[in-house]
Amino acid sequence: MKVIRDAIHGNIEISEEEIGIIDSIEVQRLRRIRQLGMAYLVYPGANHTRFEHSLGVMHLAGRVSESLGLGEDEKKLLRISGLLHDIGHMPLSHALEDLVRDYYGVTHTSLSEKIIKEMDLGNFSNREVISIVRGEGELGKIISSPLDVDRADYLVRDSHYTGVAYGVIDLERLIQSFEISNGKVVLSEKGIKAAETLLFARFAMYPTVYLHHVSRIADAMLTRAVLSCFLDRTLSIEELSKMDDFDLISFLRRQEGIPSKIMRMIDERNLYKRVVYLSRMDMDDDFFELLTNLRSNGIKKIVEIENELASEFNLRNGDLLIDVFPSPSFEEVEVLVKYRGEMKALEEVSFLAKVLSWASWDYWRFGIYVPKEIRRNLSEETVLRKLRSILGG
Amino acid sequence: MKVIRDAIHGNIEISEEEIGIIDSIEVQRLRRIRQLGMAYLVYPGANHTRFEHSLGVMHLAGRVSESLGLGEDEKKLLRISGLLHDIGHMPLSHALEDLVRDYYGVTHTSLSEKIIKEMDLGNFSNREVISIVRGEGELGKIISSPLDVDRADYLVRDSHYTGVAYGVIDLERLIQSFEISNGKVVLSEKGIKAAETLLFARFAMYPTVYLHHVSRIADAMLTRAVLSCFLDRTLSIEELSKMDDFDLISFLRRQEGIPSKIMRMIDERNLYKRVVYLSRMDMDDDFFELLTNLRSNGIKKIVEIENELASEFNLRNGDLLIDVFPSPSFEEVEVLVKYRGEMKALEEVSFLAKVLSWASWDYWRFGIYVPKEIRRNLSEETVLRKLRSILGG
Amino acid sequence: MKVIRDAIHGNIEISEEEIGIIDSIEVQRLRRIRQLGMAYLVYPGANHTRFEHSLGVMHLAGRVSESLGLGEDEKKLLRISGLLHDIGHMPLSHALEDLVRDYYGVTHTSLSEKIIKEMDLGNFSNREVISIVRGEGELGKIISSPLDVDRADYLVRDSHYTGVAYGVIDLERLIQSFEISNGKVVLSEKGIKAAETLLFARFAMYPTVYLHHVSRIADAMLTRAVLSCFLDRTLSIEELSKMDDFDLISFLRRQEGIPSKIMRMIDERNLYKRVVYLSRMDMDDDFFELLTNLRSNGIKKIVEIENELASEFNLRNGDLLIDVFPSPSFEEVEVLVKYRGEMKALEEVSFLAKVLSWASWDYWRFGIYVPKEIRRNLSEETVLRKLRSILGG
Amino acid sequence: MKVIRDAIHGNIEISEEEIGIIDSIEVQRLRRIRQLGMAYLVYPGANHTRFEHSLGVMHLAGRVSESLGLGEDEKKLLRISGLLHDIGHMPLSHALEDLVRDYYGVTHTSLSEKIIKEMDLGNFSNREVISIVRGEGELGKIISSPLDVDRADYLVRDSHYTGVAYGVIDLERLIQSFEISNGKVVLSEKGIKAAETLLFARFAMYPTVYLHHVSRIADAMLTRAVLSCFLDRTLSIEELSKMDDFDLISFLRRQEGIPSKIMRMIDERNLYKRVVYLSRMDMDDDFFELLTNLRSNGIKKIVEIENELASEFNLRNGDLLIDVFPSPSFEEVEVLVKYRGEMKALEEVSFLAKVLSWASWDYWRFGIYVPKEIRRNLSEETVLRKLRSILGG
Repeated sequence: MKVIRDAIHGNIEISEEEIGIIDSIEVQRLRRIRQLGMAYLVYPGANHTRFEHSLGVMHLAGRVSESLGLGEDEKKLLRISGLLHDIGHMPLSHALEDLVRDYYGVTHTSLSEKIIKEMDLGNFSNREVISIVRGEGELGKIISSPLDVDRADYLVRDSHYTGVAYGVIDLERLIQSFEISNGKVVLSEKGIKAAETLLFARFAMYPTVYLHHVSRIADAMLTRAVLSCFLDRTLSIEELSKMDDFDLISFLRRQEGIPSKIMRMIDERNLYKRVVYLSRMDMDDDFFELLTNLRSNGIKKIVEIENELASEFNLRNGDLLIDVFPSPSFEEVEVLVKYRGEMKALEEVSFLAKVLSWASWDYWRFGIYVPKEIRRNLSEETVLRKLRSILGG
Repeated sequence: MKVIRDAIHGNIEISEEEIGIIDSIEVQRLRRIRQLGMAYLVYPGANHTRFEHSLGVMHLAGRVSESLGLGEDEKKLLRISGLLHDIGHMPLSHALEDLVRDYYGVTHTSLSEKIIKEMDLGNFSNREVISIVRGEGELGKIISSPLDVDRADYLVRDSHYTGVAYGVIDLERLIQSFEISNGKVVLSEKGIKAAETLLFARFAMYPTVYLHHVSRIADAMLTRAVLSCFLDRTLSIEELSKMDDFDLISFLRRQEGIPSKIMRMIDERNLYKRVVYLSRMDMDDDFFELLTNLRSNGIKKIVEIENELASEFNLRNGDLLIDVFPSPSFEEVEVLVKYRGEMKALEEVSFLAKVLSWASWDYWRFGIYVPKEIRRNLSEETVLRKLRSILGG
Repeated sequence: MKVIRDAIHGNIEISEEEIGIIDSIEVQRLRRIRQLGMAYLVYPGANHTRFEHSLGVMHLAGRVSESLGLGEDEKKLLRISGLLHDIGHMPLSHALEDLVRDYYGVTHTSLSEKIIKEMDLGNFSNREVISIVRGEGELGKIISSPLDVDRADYLVRDSHYTGVAYGVIDLERLIQSFEISNGKVVLSEKGIKAAETLLFARFAMYPTVYLHHVSRIADAMLTRAVLSCFLDRTLSIEELSKMDDFDLISFLRRQEGIPSKIMRMIDERNLYKRVVYLSRMDMDDDFFELLTNLRSNGIKKIVEIENELASEFNLRNGDLLIDVFPSPSFEEVEVLVKYRGEMKALEEVSFLAKVLSWASWDYWRFGIYVPKEIRRNLSEETVLRKLRSILGG
Repeated sequence: MKVIRDAIHGNIEISEEEIGIIDSIEVQRLRRIRQLGMAYLVYPGANHTRFEHSLGVMHLAGRVSESLGLGEDEKKLLRISGLLHDIGHMPLSHALEDLVRDYYGVTHTSLSEKIIKEMDLGNFSNREVISIVRGEGELGKIISSPLDVDRADYLVRDSHYTGVAYGVIDLERLIQSFEISNGKVVLSEKGIKAAETLLFARFAMYPTVYLHHVSRIADAMLTRAVLSCFLDRTLSIEELSKMDDFDLISFLRRQEGIPSKIMRMIDERNLYKRVVYLSRMDMDDDFFELLTNLRSNGIKKIVEIENELASEFNLRNGDLLIDVFPSPSFEEVEVLVKYRGEMKALEEVSFLAKVLSWASWDYWRFGIYVPKEIRRNLSEETVLRKLRSILGG
């Protein structure tokens, strides 16, 4: 038994078997992947890593297992799956997620599976771990579902490091809120309130932290820098997926042209500014549809439009970035609750759960960003007019 | 007015004038310098940076100014000095401190002065800021003295990020504990208890965090890696002092021989192990004197002894590292207290203050570290015998 | 200047003028009035008092005054009004609120006004303080409105003492969320999120703490005990309103019949049990209307029905208690927000604010409580049937 | 299984068997006994009770049992003993402790034994529980010894409710710091630091909370009020020991003469003031010896001297109160530590432990208190001169 001190959960106990896997190169790499990507440019304390989050998920997975009365083997499997669930994250976590998905069809989930497949997991079955990480079966729900220990950990952890008070949830009560009923992992009736606070914490953290506009701008800049490397073939997806934050940032600094220019701007916190920043209620349905279509057409198409729009204002490629926020997802409502003996969807017994997802549209945005010097010479109105004409809306 | 969210002090307000200085390349570099060097290998949450610590010191300097009733100009000067007091830190903060001091006569304080001298500080006098950062005059005591806002900030901050509960001090009470008496900044009588808790927090954090053996081992390894670069002339002190953590770590990875080998071991957390680890009471006075002499002779002499000792066991240079802990300092006792109208040294009115420094010797250690595979083949006794004969003791 | 240590806000500074008022008999009485009435029977830590809450509201009123840039006189007035806003609370705070309102037309607000009128407030105008406490004018909103410092304090405080994690709000951000616009105190746009978390904290604390069924049962029992004293003329409203918790509890213990019997049951935590406990969706609209009519007819009518229903089952008066929860209020939506230069109602710019009030209906209940021994012999169905026939529904 | 929410330990799980005992009149009485007596007059939040402390000690006793690998029966026994260890506390806990010990030879420990003897503890042996509560045997050390879960709980709890930051200790680490070695419960080597922080927390809490002068004055006043009742035979020790805070305070209010006068002064926070307040270093050895002799002669002798001294200044009995602080105890140093395989006293391996007890003399005081109006007319010097002549020193 070894003990690791965690800032959130206190002492986390680890078995010999687990130490072997934690000491692998793959898990150690997570020590150098920032959990919140570029959010440290907004919240100076947001330097925490996927490594401690992974330990936290492992720990919570074990605690839920005990609360559910699972057997020792299932508990061990869940802990290891929790430890490895984020093993495929790229440098800076979600910052490059849209890019690699659209450009190479790769996600951190698909990369996780690929990496776990090839790891030496001792007595554990690599196949079983992959299945859990995918959220398959009832046990999989504990690690990956709308109400999982992944979210429970990251909300509390991100709150602790950013100093934003909104991520406070009642972990103790949440852990005891699950039960097994007819072979299904469900929320117990007395857990509805704990679930609601988790849903609300997510709701409050999104605009304040995860979708903070400065963080979105830095993500868009980094995405553009790495895209340039992809286009120049100076960086392959295979190379990128083995890098940690130190490798990537240092690599970009050493390039020429767009990548090093953007990286220097980030290092000096000389970030692009918003020339357009609209919410859903600032636009009509047609324009909204054009934008969501644009997003679903993928990043190559977006860059095409960016370049076309840039040229309209005599700007160079890379000087104008388009950011269509992802649409909020509605999956939480599907969580099953055992309510007075019957199985119900969470939205049937919690009015709050039903409405929070709709309310999340309050935080959807569409932004266009340009360097500070350029910002002064552009008007929102002109840029929007040109964009509309390009999009043909 | 701008507001930055800090995980320790909540909202930190910043003036336009200060934003200009914060946005400088020099201050932004601190965002990428870990506050606790290699301690993240022990405490996974210890990824916080000199940047947020510097903001914290700035903030506390302002609060103490208000509590003392200082004028607006003095407050501004103290805040900027707090912001810049650590500007000269090398990558990974204290990890390379002994090396660059012994090898190049450079400290983070001397570097800070050099950097501040050349910064554009607007209406502030660079000379005055340097004087404060040096701890000169009565105002200087607030930033740099045995009982300063620097310590107040780092103890609480390091505690928050490591999850170690010992760094808890009563910041509110401490801030109100200072007063000006006959032109001197002194501790008020009712501040004795607050001062004692700060002293105790330091006392408890030292062995648990700052002098944790795993952290000392990683520091020793990194020191050896960088020393190799100095010897090979692949890295100059000028280059090093401009680097951030990303530059240095990525640079070491790209070298050949000892630097990249050691850096890879650190990345994989394959750390050296202790073959010798003695406390003060484990040795006689003669041997203790030999060791402290060795330390004061500087790192070049230590490496000489390391190599000689290594060759006795047919080890390569760099495979055996010697670590003599610094002797605890006794300066806290000199703090002035206004006690029942008279000025007294803190040690006269606080028995605890008097004894904590002595008690700190409990944490002094002498260690010899070697790679895991080698550890198995060496006995503490033999190594110590050889060392004694080399040192001529 | 004096300093009082508060468990929530840390050091609270108090002027000489304020100390005089705090040391009055009226304010000191609040030290012995529990903030959460009988909730200590559910949450053993809930022993905190109106005294510290009042200090907290005073403190927050001052901080908001500073944030709004109000003058020193207005700030002083607001602080004193905050201190005195709850001066009229009966023993055990809200536990007897319905009773004295229905029976004597007295509320803690009307009592506060009466008491403040007769206090010696030095340089303050008693009339002005009363006006603020009533929530009149723009300054009054800070102390008493849907988004006031009263709520801000009690949510955080009740959370700290009960150990229920839901009352966490971002006080710093909330304090800075107010602004004066065209002579009106309004919420600033960047304060919407802080306001939402306060609304959510209230939403989550209601069912968990304020409306916890055990607390409601104990309130109903206490209400019945005091009602008996009113009916027997052993206790007048004038006497009650001068009592603290110690006086009332000790008085009830020394009575005969129902009051002492119920008080002993409370002391021994031998509480009534629920024979009926229905939510809004468990009943049809007609029955719901009967119940809300019953509630609005006042406590005398309710006791009449209680006695009639009790006699149907051969129970003594006082052995069966009816509890119709108050309907949730919808006032938060009216808060004014300055949004992109225009004044809007909070519900227009925050979907969450709009829906939380509706969602509060999830926590409305109708309960019938009887002693444990009796509970075994009664069925929910029979009791409900008899009640319907009595109510004529 | 039932769960009680505790503000310190979160959810505390309780078995059916334990619920039966918790629901007894004796344990429920603790809900109405303030943990820190009159300290609420200094710290408005200090209204917490022996009840929640007792639950906390029960909880920690269980956790230490698990950490030590004790059997289920031993764990249950330790939990129940923890629950009942303070069952004999008088109203207002320690406030009247000196009085009843000197006057009737009764302590809260002797009363606890008497009460436990007569309780129905189901399957538990009353004799065994008493033995544990006395601190007998190795298991007894966990509940009652210089390093027990009693102290661990009250330091953290008192800190939480008073808002004084000094009571922070690392509970997790402390719980894991015990081990069984050769049949003895000892501190493990890695627990030294955790033990040191507990010792320091006590050291810091004593002058700030437990021995705060306002609290000591109120204790002295209350003691004098109850002594009057003893002398008038209006209150017996049997009656007192069955009372809770509500009974006693309400009883004193209803008396005539000294008791009601003093009680009214306490209610209005019109407290006695210090006319003499000396520390150890303010007096010579002879006078110090006279004072400690006075204390050990007991309260009757002290009252005799009080009255004699009062008459010298034409004051009435009860208008002048003498308070000799208890001498700090040195027992912590005897804790056994398993250090590098050998059993050592804590003081041998922790310099801090050795010195903290000595340092506690810094907080010893001798005080003489009189009503505010009288204070103005007395000088410290005259009072001391008269006292010396009375004591014959």
